[in-house]
This record gives sequence, structure tokens and C-alpha cells, in this order.
Amino acid sequence: MLACLEGRNMAENITSPRTDYARWYQDVIREAELADKAPVRGCMVIRPYGYAIWEAIRAGLDRRFRETGHENAYFPLFIPKSFIDKESEHVEGFAPELAVVTHGGGRELEEPLIVRPTSETIINYMFAKWVQSYRDLPLLINQWANVVRWELRTRPFLRTTEFLWQEGHTAHASKQEAVEEALRMLRVYESFAVEDAAIPVIPGIKTEREKFPGAVDSYSIEAMMGNGWALQAGTSHYLGTNFARAFNIQFLNEANELEYVHQTSWGVSTRMVGAVIMAHGDEHGLRLPPGLAPIQVVVVPIWRGDDTRAAVLEECQRLRARLAEDGLRVRLDDRDTQSPGFKFNYWEVRGVPLRIEIGPRDLESGSVTAARRSRPGSEGKHSLPLDEGIAAGIRRILDEIQAELYDQALERREGWTTEVSDYAELSRLIEEKGGFFRCYWDGSREDEERLQEETKATVRCIPIDQPGTSGRCVVSGRETDRIAVIARAY
Amino acid sequence: MLACLEGRNMAENITSPRTDYARWYQDVIREAELADKAPVRGCMVIRPYGYAIWEAIRAGLDRRFRETGHENAYFPLFIPKSFIDKESEHVEGFAPELAVVTHGGGRELEEPLIVRPTSETIINYMFAKWVQSYRDLPLLINQWANVVRWELRTRPFLRTTEFLWQEGHTAHASKQEAVEEALRMLRVYESFAVEDAAIPVIPGIKTEREKFPGAVDSYSIEAMMGNGWALQAGTSHYLGTNFARAFNIQFLNEANELEYVHQTSWGVSTRMVGAVIMAHGDEHGLRLPPGLAPIQVVVVPIWRGDDTRAAVLEECQRLRARLAEDGLRVRLDDRDTQSPGFKFNYWEVRGVPLRIEIGPRDLESGSVTAARRSRPGSEGKHSLPLDEGIAAGIRRILDEIQAELYDQALERREGWTTEVSDYAELSRLIEEKGGFFRCYWDGSREDEERLQEETKATVRCIPIDQPGTSGRCVVSGRETDRIAVIARAY
Repeated sequence: MLACLEGRNMAENITSPRTDYARWYQDVIREAELADKAPVRGCMVIRPYGYAIWEAIRAGLDRRFRETGHENAYFPLFIPKSFIDKESEHVEGFAPELAVVTHGGGRELEEPLIVRPTSETIINYMFAKWVQSYRDLPLLINQWANVVRWELRTRPFLRTTEFLWQEGHTAHASKQEAVEEALRMLRVYESFAVEDAAIPVIPGIKTEREKFPGAVDSYSIEAMMGNGWALQAGTSHYLGTNFARAFNIQFLNEANELEYVHQTSWGVSTRMVGAVIMAHGDEHGLRLPPGLAPIQVVVVPIWRGDDTRAAVLEECQRLRARLAEDGLRVRLDDRDTQSPGFKFNYWEVRGVPLRIEIGPRDLESGSVTAARRSRPGSEGKHSLPLDEGIAAGIRRILDEIQAELYDQALERREGWTTEVSDYAELSRLIEEKGGFFRCYWDGSREDEERLQEETKATVRCIPIDQPGTSGRCVVSGRETDRIAVIARAY
Repeated sequence: MLACLEGRNMAENITSPRTDYARWYQDVIREAELADKAPVRGCMVIRPYGYAIWEAIRAGLDRRFRETGHENAYFPLFIPKSFIDKESEHVEGFAPELAVVTHGGGRELEEPLIVRPTSETIINYMFAKWVQSYRDLPLLINQWANVVRWELRTRPFLRTTEFLWQEGHTAHASKQEAVEEALRMLRVYESFAVEDAAIPVIPGIKTEREKFPGAVDSYSIEAMMGNGWALQAGTSHYLGTNFARAFNIQFLNEANELEYVHQTSWGVSTRMVGAVIMAHGDEHGLRLPPGLAPIQVVVVPIWRGDDTRAAVLEECQRLRARLAEDGLRVRLDDRDTQSPGFKFNYWEVRGVPLRIEIGPRDLESGSVTAARRSRPGSEGKHSLPLDEGIAAGIRRILDEIQAELYDQALERREGWTTEVSDYAELSRLIEEKGGFFRCYWDGSREDEERLQEETKATVRCIPIDQPGTSGRCVVSGRETDRIAVIARAY
């Protein structure tokens, strides 16, 4: 904070993403004050600005969950160890990642409690009580919660021991309904990523090797980050009757026969904040899409001397009030202790989509200067008349910025996606060029393991939208009509 | 659920509050589907309807926190054991209540981790990094989180091993500013309780014996429940420099000297849901204030035979859409499987403030019947013209219901508060009559212990608003000008 007062340029403290992408990421998080290291291994502190981005993500998702008929509820943090053991694939998948409470209230517990790594088991225990008849179905529940997975290598937002997320859990009368639900929520995630986060994503199905422990099918949305790596930004699972059998969730159907429910679960986590940073950030720091930006517009007064100060500030306050009334998220940076140049940098690093400057000359001309974070220098500057229509004008620019960030991300992905049919070429290009690779895929689990060992890339998903052509699998050589997206991933 | 289909009256499953208040409370929670017992000792599952009430509480508080300049952030669930040990009163207060993680990722941890019972220690560890200069102050942070306290006797919402809450944590340059903040947040809680929850509360200061471990002064808002017991519905603490010294939170003041910050913390939890249930509920179940009700208005169609069904349903749908557009939280109960009588009970148990009935005769007369949950039988019924002004008319009724619930609760408290000056009489009346007692108070910790042992009542608070008269302390007999509120409490 003291350093800031000396007027240093914060972007100078940010490593170029081209030089060292991992360091750039850490630098942006530090300089934009998104998160801080916690004094607990693998945990982070989410600072107010980072948390405000998460709150915007939460609001955008929560609205969509309600529109699709889901209700929020809350289940316990602690899960009896015996619950985790009930579904064999599930216990195997999570065993190495568990945090265990062995003592409570000064005594050793008879049965250790697991800090939830995900809540399938405890929620399905409750579902078994709530579901009796087909009339109780579908049961459509979502939970906003913290979960804990003991991770070896952690990175803020992308992989932390504790993280925040939402987990949807649903029960249905038939396989068809449950599969439809899993796909519906995948599309909800896609719509959130595209419309709110301005991130193009590829919805697809996971391979056997990459699916969630306990699922029949796992789906994901995969996004390309600024370094060409993939990031799985949300997952949705069709669980079949696996948990229903483990927890005995049965219902009487219309013919009065007992049946197991078919289930889904789906989640998005604070990882999405990492996706936003890496999908849009540049060498100057964050760039936030207006749909998620805690501050969409910052107003910076520019005065020289006390004679112009009062008039400029008054106009700034008037504009701030007008935009706020119009529902825009606006901040007036009226700090006396900082220069306009300092403030430009300060908000640039924090990725505020639009900056409005008001100085004495603007008052005379009855206009203001608006500068877009999405375009560098004078190219991103507009002059806007300071009149009744200014809020509508700013809204239009924000919509353009939202579209611009999406288009830039899509253009990068399209330009950085290569179709490859030869394994040797794939291996070479992953190393030399990076990005996404589209390849025919009909590999076994062993083929996938070989791919990962030799190239450090994985099959991200089999996209749902397929061209309908066919060719030979890039690893096994078998003929197939399925194309996979292969990339190195977070 | 099957039982419901048989058309039973849910209120029949609710014990009268006059017969057994504790059982009434459990019955209401079960029948209104607010919460369910969890398979983990002392924990509960918050079901969608109960969680929606908590979400409304959260929204009302969060808005007020922002208006008073606070920002949300998120700190780790786990706290190194050594942190808790740093502040001596704090560690003593919480030692018997801690849940301890000893194993993570398949190994025993070098230092056990405490599942946060409250976050003073870990937040102040971070504050020490963030605060350098007076320019960094005040630091005004709030966190929405789950916390864990290993409680011996638990009751849903009122006292559970895990609960949800918000905890505000602030740091200031002076004692005066910090005390002002602690009192400001007490008043924020009061305004929320009064305006949103329709619960009259007494803001006051806690005695030495009842204060938060580690605080210099603790303040609380105390509410009267339906059985005359008190419930502490929110607390705010002036922490002095206790945690600042333990965690070395110092700043350079304007004279360039190092000083410790003065701090506050303040919290409201899911206990507030229990307060709402017990402040307003009656023998038929919940009664929710419109300010917090997840559903403010339920529309129930009444048809006899298929000839009227379509017309009635259409009018109901039109009304639902009109009210929703107006920003009201409205539900149309168009279930074919249930009778209107069943639905009346169903929504009565759930405390929906206003029910609107539409039948064929209403269509003819161009009006609807509105029935208030706050008044029994025909006394609470209105006929409303089904015209353009209906949303405004319903808003007016909801405002009246909000005021009515507040007035009823205030009237109960005033009628059930006794001024007593004699200890023997106090002891007798606590047992015979219950309610709140206003007594001159200048007792020691020992006097308070005697009071509690002999009467099971405690000093709830010394109200901030004092009459300015004086008299003899009801226990010690010492002359004092302070009046305390004494009651049995949750």
C-alpha cells in the first residue's frame, strides 16, 4: 500500500504473459488484490475484489438454476467415513484427497468425520428419506458450499485445498430424464460462460479415464486460456443408479413398483475466477467482462489546481449518481492522494471495462472521454456527449466490450486449434505450438495414458457437436467417427 | 408425502405451543419442511424452504453491510492450532468446542488444524499483512461462512454443531472509531430485526460474564420468543487491541508512530431463522413477515368440475404474472392432485403471509378473496377488485401484515415484561410467570452465577436506552442507575 502511494506503475510488477505465463498469473492475482496466500497449506484468502467476481459468477449461475426449477439447500460439512466407503468408485477416487476430523469437543470421535470433498454421499442419504413416490420426483437441489480436497500442487483459484463451489444434485424417475438433466445443466454452464463470462467453451463428454468417480457419464465445458492450455470450467454428471443403489433411493412408480432413481450432479467452482483471469487478462493485468465486473465503469476526475477541482468533482458525482441510478456498477475514484495517471493504472490492472475521464475541458465542451480496457491506447477512446443519453450510450459500449472480449477469445481459440491425424505430428505440435488439437479418437485407457505420458496433453472431451465425418484414431489407428479435443490442461 | 395426498391437516401434527413449546418448535420445523436431522451428531440439513428464509435474511443484512461501507471476503475454513492459542481469553472460551483435523491426504498432519469456530485469529493474521499505514484504515470486512462448535445439546437453527453465519471484522485507528463501529453494527442488526424480520429487539451491552471471549465489550440484540424466553439474535463486539497485540497489527499514524489498531467483530447466524419461527409462529405453524417470506402471496384456484377449471386457472395465471412483474414473490398452487382445503393448510403451516382464492364466483364479480395469515378466520379476509390496482392493493396489505406481526410481538413483549426490585419476587415470578424482567443491576460475576443457578435466568443485557433513574440492584442490593433485562434464554 505504501508502495502505491509512491505512484509506481503496477503493470510494471506484472511479468509479461509471453515470458512466463504462470508467473504472470500469480502477479495479476497479487497486483489486482484478488487473493492472498493463507497460512494454511494449499489454502487461499479471497480478497474483496476477487470475492466480488465470485459473487457475480454466483449470481449469474444461481439465476439460471432457479429458471430451470432448482432450489438451494444446505447439507452438513462433515460426512461419516462409512458414507464415503459406500460407493466403490467414489471412495477410490477421493481416498487420497480427504481431510479427516478425528477429535471433537475435546474427545476422540468414535467414527472419524470426513470434511466433504463433494456431497453426493450425504445428500443421497437424505434423498433416500425424501423420495418415496414418483410424485416426489424430480428432486432438483443445488448447494453453495465450501469443499476440501487435499491437493499436492495448488494454485490460487485453479486448485486449492479448500474451494467454494455449487453442487447440483438431482433425482429422476428415468434414465432419459436424468441424462436430459445432465445435458441441460451442461448447456446452462455453457450459456453462463458465453453470456456472462464472455468465454467460448466446448461442451463435450469425458473419456472413461477422465470421468468423475461414481459417474456413468461425465460432461464438461472446456475453455482455452491465454497460453493455449485448456481449463475445465464446469462439469455435469449422469450418475445412473450408482448412488441410488449405494444409498437405497427407491420410489414407487405409477404401477406401484419399486425402482431406483436415476441421478445427476454438476458443479462450478471458484476455478471459474481463474478461467476469467486467464481467458481475458493481458500484459497490463485483468480484463473483466462487463457481465461479471464488480465495477463496470470507473469515473476519474482530472483537475489542475483548486479553481477547477470543485466543478469537475461535482460533475463526476452527478455522472456517478446518474449511472448508478441506471443500474450500472460505477465507482468514482475521487482520492486526493493519487494522480490521474496512477488511477488509470490502478483500474487498468483491476480490469475495469470502461474508464471515464472528466476534466475542465470536458466541462466546457459538454462531453467526456471514455476509454475501453479491451482496446489499447487511443484506439479504445470515445468522446461521449454529457447529456441525458449518456447512461444508454455507456450501456451500448459495455455491450460492445462484452462482445469484443468474447470475439477475441474465440478468435484465439480458432486460430490456435489444429486438426491432426498423425500421432508423431501431434506430439511435435503440442510441444512446439500448443493450443487445442482436434483428432479422431477411439483410444483405450492405455492409449490415453500413453498420450499423457508422452505429450503431457490429455483428451479434454469428445465435443457434443461432431462433424459426422470419420477417420483413424490418432493413437490407436482404429476407424471412428468421433473427434476429440486434445490439449495440455490445468 | 403419501400422507399429504390423503388430505390430512398438517396443523394436526403440530403440538400446541401452550402444551409443549419445545415440541411445537420441532413440529413446525418438520411440517413446514424447514430442516431435517442430519446423520452427523448435532448437525442439521437446511431444506429448501428453510434455506430460502436464510437467503432472505442474508440479502437484508448484506445490503445493510454494503450501505455501511463493508466488503465481503473469504478466509480459510481451517485454522492452525497455534493461532487459536495466541489470545488467552479466546482460546479458553473455545477450547471445549473445537473440531480438529488431524489427518489430510492420507497422512497425519504435523500441526493439527482447527475447523473455524469463528475467524478472528486467521483474519487478524491477514490484517497484520494488509495494514501498514493509517491510510489503510478503517478496514471493513465481512465474511459469509460456515463455522463449527462442538455443542453438547443442540436444537435446529438455535444451536447446531455446524451453522451458517456472517462475521464482520474491522480494524480502526482509534478506540472511539472502533466503539462507534461496534454500536453502528448493533443498530444495523436492530434495523434488520425490526424492518425485515418484524421482531422488536432490545439492544444492550453484555455483562462481563456473558461477553465474547477476547472482547472488551460485547453488545447484543435480545428478542422475546413466543414462550417468553429471550433469544440473542445478533452480537457486536469491541475487541480493543487484544487481537491486534496477539497478531501484531500495527500501523503508522499520521505522526509516523506505530500504534495497534482497535477492532470489532459482529455476527448473525442461522439462529435468526429460529428467532423468526419463535417470534411469530402460532398453533397452525409458521407465520412469516412479508419482508423475509420466500413466498409472499400464494394463489389458490377453486374450481368445481371441468367447465369452470380453464377460466379459473387462466385468471390465476394472469394474476400470478401480474404480481410477479410487480416484483412480488408469488406462487400459483395449481396442483391437480390436491383440494383447495389441503392447499390452505399447506401454505398456512408454511406461514405464507397472504393467500388469494379465485373461484367461478370471483370471476363473475370481478374480485378475489385475500386471506391474511396474521389474522385467523374471516377477520383476516378481504375482497379485492381484480383490476389494474390489484398489485398495489396487495402491497398495501403486505405492509400492514408486516406491521401487524411487529406490533403483535411488541405487544407480547410489553405485556410480558415485569419490573421487579425484590430478588425473592423475581425468583418466584421467573418460575410462575416467565417473560422479561427489568431490574436494577450492579451485580458481580458471582451474583450472576447465583441468579442463574437459582432461577435458570440470566442477565440478557444492560439496555443502551436507560431511564436515568436509580435504585438497588436486585441481587447485590447496591445502589445503581443501570437497569438490566433478565430472562430465561435460548
